[in-house]
Amino acid sequence: MISDDIDFSKMNGLIPVIAQDWETNEILMLAFADKEALNKTLSSGFAHYYSRSRKKLWKKGGSSGHTQEIVEIRVDCDRDTLIYRVRQKGGACHTGYYSCFYRIIDKSGFKITGIKNFDPEKIYTS
Amino acid sequence: MISDDIDFSKMNGLIPVIAQDWETNEILMLAFADKEALNKTLSSGFAHYYSRSRKKLWKKGGSSGHTQEIVEIRVDCDRDTLIYRVRQKGGACHTGYYSCFYRIIDKSGFKITGIKNFDPEKIYTS
Repeated sequence: MISDDIDFSKMNGLIPVIAQDWETNEILMLAFADKEALNKTLSSGFAHYYSRSRKKLWKKGGSSGHTQEIVEIRVDCDRDTLIYRVRQKGGACHTGYYSCFYRIIDKSGFKITGIKNFDPEKIYTS
Repeated sequence: MISDDIDFSKMNGLIPVIAQDWETNEILMLAFADKEALNKTLSSGFAHYYSRSRKKLWKKGGSSGHTQEIVEIRVDCDRDTLIYRVRQKGGACHTGYYSCFYRIIDKSGFKITGIKNFDPEKIYTS
């Protein structure tokens, strides 16, 4: 299995995964995957991660519908980081922004530059 | 200081940092930063990281000359991941590729798609 060739040893079974819009190259979010999440991503064609807070497999968009369809997966030189290049439905960020990286920082502080494209209160209900 | 607003608590004082080409949005590499590396990046205008293997502050390109001039820094919703948007000199990867993510993986294996743009043996001499 291809996931056997990925180095999960440096972070207790996890690797960082960057989700990137396949068309614009915009970076959407960073999360973590274990071997199971990577295998599930490869077999399903949709982005799966390992949630460190909930300590379990997590299909992105499982509750919000904001799934990430995999176009391509890239691996780095050390085989310990992945990029999921995806078609993002809705938005990647739970705050309503398309990308989690909607702010710039510099010496003077934070500045919002991203675009809010959904209302999280309408999507995430508990 | 702006670095006080970044959450370094989840990974023992480190956060993941994605380096991205500011012009094409190509993802170049992923590395880690501690507070000192972020402050050094902000004050110098050049990407600094924390090397986990060498356990010390690391200026990208310090020995190779392949520096990353900061154009902009972005932070994610949780304030625990950064993007350095940079002007990359030479190439980001020690193997000679412009980006460390020069390979695609799928169920059948690895496939090289990146462009090699320097000879690492001429750059990294010990």
